[in-house]
Amino acid sequence: MISDKIPLIKEFSKLYRNQLLEDVLPFWVKHSPDQKYGGYFTSLDRKGQVYDTDKFVWLQCRQVWTLARLYQDIKADPEWADLAIQGAEFLQNHGRDAEGRWYFALDRSGQPLIQPYNIFSDCFAAMAFGQLYQITRDETHKRIAVDTFHQILSRRDNPKGHYSKVYPGTRPMKSFALPMILCNLVLELESVLDSDTVEATIRDGIHQVMEVFYQPEILGGVILENVSADGKFSNTYEGRLINPGHILEAMWFVMDLAKRQNDTSLIGQAEAISLHILELGWDQEFGGIYYFMDALGHPLQQLEWDQKLWWVHLEAMVAAIKGFNLTGNQKMWEWFVKLHHYAQNHFPDPEFGEWYGYLNRRGEVLIPAKGGKWKGCFHVPRGLYQIWSTLVATNEKSGTSKL
Amino acid sequence: MISDKIPLIKEFSKLYRNQLLEDVLPFWVKHSPDQKYGGYFTSLDRKGQVYDTDKFVWLQCRQVWTLARLYQDIKADPEWADLAIQGAEFLQNHGRDAEGRWYFALDRSGQPLIQPYNIFSDCFAAMAFGQLYQITRDETHKRIAVDTFHQILSRRDNPKGHYSKVYPGTRPMKSFALPMILCNLVLELESVLDSDTVEATIRDGIHQVMEVFYQPEILGGVILENVSADGKFSNTYEGRLINPGHILEAMWFVMDLAKRQNDTSLIGQAEAISLHILELGWDQEFGGIYYFMDALGHPLQQLEWDQKLWWVHLEAMVAAIKGFNLTGNQKMWEWFVKLHHYAQNHFPDPEFGEWYGYLNRRGEVLIPAKGGKWKGCFHVPRGLYQIWSTLVATNEKSGTSKL
Repeated sequence: MISDKIPLIKEFSKLYRNQLLEDVLPFWVKHSPDQKYGGYFTSLDRKGQVYDTDKFVWLQCRQVWTLARLYQDIKADPEWADLAIQGAEFLQNHGRDAEGRWYFALDRSGQPLIQPYNIFSDCFAAMAFGQLYQITRDETHKRIAVDTFHQILSRRDNPKGHYSKVYPGTRPMKSFALPMILCNLVLELESVLDSDTVEATIRDGIHQVMEVFYQPEILGGVILENVSADGKFSNTYEGRLINPGHILEAMWFVMDLAKRQNDTSLIGQAEAISLHILELGWDQEFGGIYYFMDALGHPLQQLEWDQKLWWVHLEAMVAAIKGFNLTGNQKMWEWFVKLHHYAQNHFPDPEFGEWYGYLNRRGEVLIPAKGGKWKGCFHVPRGLYQIWSTLVATNEKSGTSKL
Repeated sequence: MISDKIPLIKEFSKLYRNQLLEDVLPFWVKHSPDQKYGGYFTSLDRKGQVYDTDKFVWLQCRQVWTLARLYQDIKADPEWADLAIQGAEFLQNHGRDAEGRWYFALDRSGQPLIQPYNIFSDCFAAMAFGQLYQITRDETHKRIAVDTFHQILSRRDNPKGHYSKVYPGTRPMKSFALPMILCNLVLELESVLDSDTVEATIRDGIHQVMEVFYQPEILGGVILENVSADGKFSNTYEGRLINPGHILEAMWFVMDLAKRQNDTSLIGQAEAISLHILELGWDQEFGGIYYFMDALGHPLQQLEWDQKLWWVHLEAMVAAIKGFNLTGNQKMWEWFVKLHHYAQNHFPDPEFGEWYGYLNRRGEVLIPAKGGKWKGCFHVPRGLYQIWSTLVATNEKSGTSKL
């Protein structure tokens, strides 16, 4: 039943809206712009002060995307559009090598620091320019998005090229991250790609996530980070690795795809996997969701395995509230509320704004920064927006008054 | 004064001897040999059971070195020699590519998994075969050690080759790890290298460690993990990184070199740096030495920065007791005793033997394995042996009865 939850849905909806629009976005708009060279600072300390000026292409692109998306979906605030465009200009001027591949890191002025070894830089660039095109209708933005997308497809079988340290042939493995991101990316780029490419990529993405990387025999059904080239469980460090936050993020991507094609069976599968992963990944002693787990319970090589990360909890909340919105499943609601309490009690910084990124197992702040090499203007605003908008949609579905 | 410490020196000496010979070495002799394919399993769980069969060249080489060194220095136990030789045979058969560079990882049967991108594999191989030659006098072992050493020298300016992701020219940096290991490696290989090479490498190594990477203006004097190509502090993530355990390990390497050439001034410098780093790296709240620190106190990108690692504490104890042995400095003794209490109360596993490798900030076991991808039969036995033999030498110096 949704109707008995309306008071809480309204309360949460207001909280997530306010956190997004009155705390998190203003934090980035105020502290991140580099007025001198363009682009964004993301290494911001607790107070928002810049402690390092390097520019990581993942985070530059993700901030362009966030600003453009919220401009389109929430309100046409010219400050957001200007900031998105100045970040995009910095990326256009400095982000790519001669072959159009996106560097991983640049220095403050835009000189390349780290080579284009990482295909996710390209994924986030395509996402950024595709979204930016929606608000600028600038053909250059569209062309960068489309060209980058086709670059990704052409590199997908050997994304690291000569930077790969894997000896070919001994133990061919494939990784979950790229097919998962492609599922999301094609939806982002749907309006600028031909429909055959979109449909084929979605079909393959859902197949990879739900039939190849999902392994029903492992721990009652989990999605593995890596499987052997023939789609089997590999009893190796890489093969045993489970990343609950990554799975939950993938499950809301799949819910979005399933909703788009009215596939209730697929929604049910994604919801069932989400519930199972939430049970499995929850720390019974200290609360929160573990960062990494081993499929056979063996010792992990990831020393950060027991830490509680901001993005994991946001992705989990998004999966839970989307599942509840789509099916009305009471368990999804209960998980959403449980995650909400954990996240709101641990991650936001009431004094200086935004969310902490890294807590230790006990939920104490491990690293007080608000941004760095991997945390920028992306997961928090995207997650808050997804939660808020899903709560609004749930309320509207219930037929009660608008929020 | 050494004489008033003789009772404790005797007690500690016995403890470290027993831990080495009755606990740690038997653990590896029993659990690590791969009877089927040769080489060693290092991914051993708390009880010593194998949880992963991959073979990491660093750890294969380090175990050969440990067994050969202890065979030579402690007792000619044929079981140790046989085990060293079987590990070396596995490495001879499978460890190198066609150009003689050492792979990073092999599968159980010896097939290469990870390319030779990591020059420290070569360093540990040279160390292993050089030490093995001391006990076998097999010219093949000598040749592998010498050839590998010259390979390292020829690759030292571009150790990662085409696997490097650093864009050339934007921000050239140099790293502390290689010059530091070379300081130790030339002493290991002294008998098989020409003396000009040995002396030149030592001179350069001491210069690099004590004059280039040691930066007196930073935090009262620290050795940085990375400096700019012209030897300056770089206010970047890499440039700000401090690894206290690494510095303390380097300081006992330098003490060994200084003792060899009777350089009391250099001993004094290494001791002063050690004392300062111990003060700086000690966790005042929970005890133990941090894994990483930032030179300007900025947030670290290393999520494991506050963890307490086994090797850090062993290297710290070795530096403290060697300093005390060389100078009689009361502060070095006090640090040794403090580190001894922390380490002995937290790392050894009285039930199943050996030491845990990874504790959280509070000193609780974070990963219960006894070995893995980075921990094998090396730091614990080497550290216990260094501590024990230094305690014995200190006692003998004091002129009291032999231990």
